[in-house]
Amino acid sequence: MMFVLHPGVSEKKINEFTQKFEKMGFTPMISSGTERTVVGLVGNTKILDVDDIVENNDIVSYGKRITEPYKLASRAFHPDDTMVMVGEKIVGNKIAGNQTVGNNKGGNKIVGNQIFGEGIFQVISGPCSVESEDQIIKVARAVKLSGATLLRGGAYKPRSSPYSFQGLEMDGLKLLSIAKQETGLPIVSELTNISQLDDFEDVDVIQIGARNMQNYDLLKEIGKIKKPILLKRGLCNTIEEFLMSAEYIMAGGNENVILCERGMRTIETMTRNTLDISAVPLLKKISHLPIIIDPSHAAGIRSLVAPLSKAAIAAGADGLMIETHNDPANALCDGAQSLDLAQFDNLMFEVKRRVEFEGKILGT
Amino acid sequence: MMFVLHPGVSEKKINEFTQKFEKMGFTPMISSGTERTVVGLVGNTKILDVDDIVENNDIVSYGKRITEPYKLASRAFHPDDTMVMVGEKIVGNKIAGNQTVGNNKGGNKIVGNQIFGEGIFQVISGPCSVESEDQIIKVARAVKLSGATLLRGGAYKPRSSPYSFQGLEMDGLKLLSIAKQETGLPIVSELTNISQLDDFEDVDVIQIGARNMQNYDLLKEIGKIKKPILLKRGLCNTIEEFLMSAEYIMAGGNENVILCERGMRTIETMTRNTLDISAVPLLKKISHLPIIIDPSHAAGIRSLVAPLSKAAIAAGADGLMIETHNDPANALCDGAQSLDLAQFDNLMFEVKRRVEFEGKILGT
Amino acid sequence: MMFVLHPGVSEKKINEFTQKFEKMGFTPMISSGTERTVVGLVGNTKILDVDDIVENNDIVSYGKRITEPYKLASRAFHPDDTMVMVGEKIVGNKIAGNQTVGNNKGGNKIVGNQIFGEGIFQVISGPCSVESEDQIIKVARAVKLSGATLLRGGAYKPRSSPYSFQGLEMDGLKLLSIAKQETGLPIVSELTNISQLDDFEDVDVIQIGARNMQNYDLLKEIGKIKKPILLKRGLCNTIEEFLMSAEYIMAGGNENVILCERGMRTIETMTRNTLDISAVPLLKKISHLPIIIDPSHAAGIRSLVAPLSKAAIAAGADGLMIETHNDPANALCDGAQSLDLAQFDNLMFEVKRRVEFEGKILGT
Amino acid sequence: MMFVLHPGVSEKKINEFTQKFEKMGFTPMISSGTERTVVGLVGNTKILDVDDIVENNDIVSYGKRITEPYKLASRAFHPDDTMVMVGEKIVGNKIAGNQTVGNNKGGNKIVGNQIFGEGIFQVISGPCSVESEDQIIKVARAVKLSGATLLRGGAYKPRSSPYSFQGLEMDGLKLLSIAKQETGLPIVSELTNISQLDDFEDVDVIQIGARNMQNYDLLKEIGKIKKPILLKRGLCNTIEEFLMSAEYIMAGGNENVILCERGMRTIETMTRNTLDISAVPLLKKISHLPIIIDPSHAAGIRSLVAPLSKAAIAAGADGLMIETHNDPANALCDGAQSLDLAQFDNLMFEVKRRVEFEGKILGT
Repeated sequence: MMFVLHPGVSEKKINEFTQKFEKMGFTPMISSGTERTVVGLVGNTKILDVDDIVENNDIVSYGKRITEPYKLASRAFHPDDTMVMVGEKIVGNKIAGNQTVGNNKGGNKIVGNQIFGEGIFQVISGPCSVESEDQIIKVARAVKLSGATLLRGGAYKPRSSPYSFQGLEMDGLKLLSIAKQETGLPIVSELTNISQLDDFEDVDVIQIGARNMQNYDLLKEIGKIKKPILLKRGLCNTIEEFLMSAEYIMAGGNENVILCERGMRTIETMTRNTLDISAVPLLKKISHLPIIIDPSHAAGIRSLVAPLSKAAIAAGADGLMIETHNDPANALCDGAQSLDLAQFDNLMFEVKRRVEFEGKILGT
Repeated sequence: MMFVLHPGVSEKKINEFTQKFEKMGFTPMISSGTERTVVGLVGNTKILDVDDIVENNDIVSYGKRITEPYKLASRAFHPDDTMVMVGEKIVGNKIAGNQTVGNNKGGNKIVGNQIFGEGIFQVISGPCSVESEDQIIKVARAVKLSGATLLRGGAYKPRSSPYSFQGLEMDGLKLLSIAKQETGLPIVSELTNISQLDDFEDVDVIQIGARNMQNYDLLKEIGKIKKPILLKRGLCNTIEEFLMSAEYIMAGGNENVILCERGMRTIETMTRNTLDISAVPLLKKISHLPIIIDPSHAAGIRSLVAPLSKAAIAAGADGLMIETHNDPANALCDGAQSLDLAQFDNLMFEVKRRVEFEGKILGT
Repeated sequence: MMFVLHPGVSEKKINEFTQKFEKMGFTPMISSGTERTVVGLVGNTKILDVDDIVENNDIVSYGKRITEPYKLASRAFHPDDTMVMVGEKIVGNKIAGNQTVGNNKGGNKIVGNQIFGEGIFQVISGPCSVESEDQIIKVARAVKLSGATLLRGGAYKPRSSPYSFQGLEMDGLKLLSIAKQETGLPIVSELTNISQLDDFEDVDVIQIGARNMQNYDLLKEIGKIKKPILLKRGLCNTIEEFLMSAEYIMAGGNENVILCERGMRTIETMTRNTLDISAVPLLKKISHLPIIIDPSHAAGIRSLVAPLSKAAIAAGADGLMIETHNDPANALCDGAQSLDLAQFDNLMFEVKRRVEFEGKILGT
Repeated sequence: MMFVLHPGVSEKKINEFTQKFEKMGFTPMISSGTERTVVGLVGNTKILDVDDIVENNDIVSYGKRITEPYKLASRAFHPDDTMVMVGEKIVGNKIAGNQTVGNNKGGNKIVGNQIFGEGIFQVISGPCSVESEDQIIKVARAVKLSGATLLRGGAYKPRSSPYSFQGLEMDGLKLLSIAKQETGLPIVSELTNISQLDDFEDVDVIQIGARNMQNYDLLKEIGKIKKPILLKRGLCNTIEEFLMSAEYIMAGGNENVILCERGMRTIETMTRNTLDISAVPLLKKISHLPIIIDPSHAAGIRSLVAPLSKAAIAAGADGLMIETHNDPANALCDGAQSLDLAQFDNLMFEVKRRVEFEGKILGT
C-alpha cells in the first residue's frame, strides 16, 4: 500500500503518519521526491482500508493498494492451474462419479485411468428443479447418454417470490442420489443455508448461488469442509469481489473452488443477463481456479444457449452448466431457458467436436 | 396475467391452452378481437412465471402480468401508511426506547404521550462497528444529545475480505445493550445469520444488510418473529425486487418492515454508490411501508452526507441512518464516510429545522 | 502522473524510461524506496495516456494520474463559483430576459437592479416540443405567471425513432422568439447540429442534449461562441466525463457552461432514469460551474417531478428544468412526464418557499 | 399497440378513447372480456408513444407495443441475411478492394469469382490512429500479409479530452488512400461530422463511433448516401436502440449497414468494457444485418483480444475489427489494447482455422 502526500508536508507530520503504522507492525518506506513524498507500507496490508486512511489523514493526497486483496485465489501466489477433484473415493481401480474440473496441462495421469491429456472439459446438465423421480431419472439418463459428465438439479431453490415453488428440499436431494446411482454421474446442487449441510452428504459439488455470493457466513462455513464448491458470480459483482468470495472459502481451508460466470445484470433487457465472456480469459490470467460458464442463466433464452456454449469453449472455459428438462413447457421453473433432451443432444454434438478442436478432452 | 396470441390460432389450440390453466384452478377469460385473441387468467397467478408460459406455448406471442407480484407490501391492498412500532413494552406511563418509523398522518396519538402530529422522522445514528464500551457509550451519549432517536452499531459485520475486522459479535451486542440502558435509545444492529437470533433479544430493530436482501432463507426466518426489520435494498436490485424481499418477510407473518435505500451500484465511480432518491416518492406511491435513507453508505464520502440528508427529508423520507464515530480517523471500518460527533451535531441542527419545515416531527 | 516500477528493475532500464519522457519535455522525478522505485512526471501530462504507458513499459507495475484531466472546469484552478450571465445586453436600466444561473454568494449586485442576495435559483420551464404559436404562448404566459424564470422549448428534437415527430425546427425557434417577446422570458432550446447555429441567434441558452454530450465536434464548435451552454450529462457518463465535456467547450473559449444532471441509465426500470442527486454536492465540490437538475427526464413520471424538485433544492442545485405542457394528454412528445399548468403552478409555490428557506432568491 | 383498461370503465369512455385514435387514422379493435377490456390499435403505431398514452388516459391501466419499433432492420420483414458489398466498382474481371460483410448462406457466387460458400468472414485491422505514411503503409502491408481483409485507421478521432491527439484529419485519410493503393485493402475510417463527408470519397466503409450512435442528425445524413456504414453500438445502449439507429440510416435509403458490438459499460472495472457476446446470436435472430465484433475496444487489454476473437467466431459473428500497431509502445492512442504485427499474425493463424472450422470462408 502506498500513499502520495500533498506537496510541502512537514517532516514532523510525515513522521507522525509513519509512526502510527510502525506501531501497528508495518514497515513504512519513505521516498522523497523533489515535489512530493511517497510513503509505502510493507506488511500485511490486507487488514487496512486504503480509502479510510486517505480520508482520515490530512497530509495524504492519494492512496493505492499495490497488491490484490486476495492471495489464495491469485495466480501470483499459485502459478499452476488448480485441479479440482470431484467424486467418490477411489477403491481399488473402481472410481464412481469422479470428474475433474480444471486444466490438466501437464498431461499427467491424475486419478486412476480417468484423467489425462492437456485439458479436461466438464458439462454439468440437468433441470433447474428436481420435480419427481421419473423426471430426474429420465433427464439424468438422457444427458449422460448425450455426454454430460455431471448431473445438476435444484432441491433448495432461491426464488424471488415467496409464492413460487421453493423446491422439493430434502426429498429432491434423495431423488438426485437415486439418479446418481442409476447413471454414475456425480451430482451438483445448490446449498442455500448451512443447516442443510447434512442433507448434502451424497452431493458431490455444492453450488453457492449468485444471490449468496456475498453471504459471508455461508462462505465461512463451507470453507470448513473439503467438498468442491461451485461458486457462482453475483449478478452485479466485479471479478475482484468474485475472487474475494473464493478467498473466503479458501481462507477457511477449502481450496476446491470452481468459479462459474452466469451473466451480469446490465442495462440490456432483451437477455435475462449479459454473459461476461471476458471473465474467462481474465480469470485464467489472474487466478488459478477453474472457471465454467452457465449460458442458460446468462441468456434466459433457449435459442442462445448453443451459441454461448460455443463461445465459452472458444474463450477457454473449463466447462459448461446447462439447464435441461424432459418437458420444458411444463417445468416448474426456468422453463424458458431449458433445453429439451433432443436440443441438449444436438448441443453436445457441437460441444464434443469443439472441445476436441481446442485440444481438450471431455470428462468421462 | 394476460397473453396475446399469434394471429390465426385455431380455436382448438386456444381451448387446449386455456384448459391447461383451468385444471390448475385458474379462470381463463377469452377476448377475441378482429385479428388477435387475448387470454386472461384470473386466480392466484403469483405462482406462475409469465416468461415460461410465453416461451413454452407456441401460440402465445406475448404475456404480461397485470398485477404486481407482491401483495402484502403493496399500497393497492393496504392504502394506509404502515406505522412500525419500535421498542420496549409500555409499562404505565414509562416507555423506554420507543420509536415509531413511518408517517402519522392522521395526527392520532399512537403510543403513550410520545407520537403525534402529521408525520414522524427518525434518525438512527452510531458507528459502523461497535469497537469498545468506551466508544459506543461515548457515541451513544453524543448522538442522543444531538437529537438522534435510535442507536446503530454493527456487531456481526459482513466484510468483503476475510482478512478484515469482522466485528465484536456477541460482545458487541452486549455493549450496545449497555449503551441502550445508558441513553434509552432503542438499538439497531445487523443480523447476518439466523443462528445469531438469540443474541439479538435486546436489539430493537434487526437490520438485514444489502448483501442479504435476497438471502431468502434468512428472510423466511425473520418473517417468523415480530421484531421490526430494517431491510436494506441490495446494491443492484430493482424496487420490485426490494418489495418482493419485504413480501418474503411479511408473508411469514412479520409486517414490521422498514425499507432502507442505501445507494445503487452504477457506472459512477466518484461516489461509493449512487443514491436513488427517486425510490422515496416511488415507494411511498406503490407501498405503504416506511422508507428511510442511508446517505453514509450511498455516498461513501463524508462531505456528501449532509446534502444527501437534506435531499432525503425534502423527498419525503421517514428517516435517516447515519454513520457517526467519535474518532473516524481510527475507526475499524468505514471511517471515510463517518461523521465525527461535532459534524453530526451540526447536521442534526439542519435536520431539525427541515423536519419542522416539512410539517413533521422528530421522534422523541 | 506517477508510476510504481516492478521490484528489482535495473538502473539502466529506469534511465531509459525516464529519458523517453525527458525528450518529450517532461521532468521525471525518481523516488527510490527500499523495495520499489516510483517515477513521477512533471509537465503537461494531460497529453499522456496513463494506461498506455503502463501496458507498454515492461518495468512499470502501476500508474496513476495525480491531477484531474480537466483544468478549466476544476474548482482547484478556479475557487470561486462561476456566474453565468444569460440574456440581452443591458440598455440603460432596461434588461430584457436577463437571468443568472449560479451562486451569488458575495451578495454583490451583478446586473442592473436584477440580481442580488446570496444565491440565485432559476426555473426553466416549457414544453418538450414547440408545437404551435398558440401552445407556446399559452405555456410561456402561464409559467411566467407561476414564477418560471426562463422558457424552454424543443425545436430540433433528437428522437430515438426516425418515425417520431422530429420537431418544428426553424419554425419552432421563431415561435419561441415570439413567446420571448410576449413574456420577456429568455429562451433555452436544444441545438443538435452546428449547421443550425444561425437559427439560434435569438436563443439565450443553447442546450446540448444528453446524447450529444460526447459529440466532440459539436462541443468544439460551441466553444467558439460566447452564448451560455446548458450541457446535459449523458445517460451513462461519469461525472469526470461530464466535466471533460465542459472542458471541451471551455477550452474553445466559452466559459459560460451550465451543467445539468438529468438522470442516469441504471438497472432500475420503474423510473425512466435514476436521478443522481449526489452529483449536485459533488460537482459543487470539484467544479465551479453552476449545476441544475432536470427532474422530468430523470423520473419520466409526472408524480415524481415535485418530490425530486424539492430534493434538488435541498441538495444545493442552482436551478431546475421542468417540462410543462398546456395539454399533456395530447403532447407530441414526453407527455407522460410533463406537468400541466396547474401542477406547475402548485410546484412553484413549493419551489418558492424552499428557495427562500435555503437563503437563496429566485431569478426575476 | 394494445391497452388494457381498468375494470369497470364505462362504454362511453371507451368510445371516446377509441374515437380519438380513429380520427388519427388507426383502426381500434375492442376485445371485451368478463372483467377488463383490451383495446388494440391497428395502423402505423410507430408514431405513437405507448407510455404517453397510458399516462394521459385515465381509463388505461397498461399499454404494450406488440410489434418492434424498427421495421427495415427487422428480420421479420426481411427474412434473408443482408449482404453488404464493400469496395470498388467491378471493371471487367478486376475487382479492387471488394469485400462482402455478411453471410452467403445460399452458396451463390456474388461478385466476380470472389465470394462463395456458406459464409464469409471479414477481418478489419489497423491502427487506432493514422500517424504517418511510414506507419500506415507498414501496418497495412503486414496485416494484409497476415490475412486481414480490410484496413482500418482513424483520421478524425473522438477523444474524451480536448488536450489529447485528435487525429491527422484530412491528411490521415490521404495516407489511408495511399495504403489502399499499395495493398488493395478497402479502407474503414470514422466520420464524426457530416462536413467531413467529401474527404471520405476514397473511404470504402464509413464508421460511426459508439459516441455518435444516437447522433441522429449524422445518421440521417449518412442515410442519404449508399456507402456501407459500420455502426458501432453505444456504450450504454440496448440492442433495440442499436437497431433503431440502424433504422435511421436505412429509413434514409442506405441499407448497407454493418453492426458492430464493441463492449458495454458495466460495473466491471478490470476490463475497459464488457463484451456483450450474446448480441451476436440475438441480432442474428431479430435482424438481417451483418454483425461484427471489436474485441480491442471491448476488452481494452491486449491479452484478451485473442480469446475474445475466438469467442466471436464461435458465436457466429461475421467479422472482427482489431486494432494493430507496428509499435504499440509508442502509439498515439489506444496502445494498451493494440496488437503488434507479430501478435496479429499469430491471431490470424487462429482466426483462419476457426473460420474454416465454422464452415465459413475468410474474405479475400
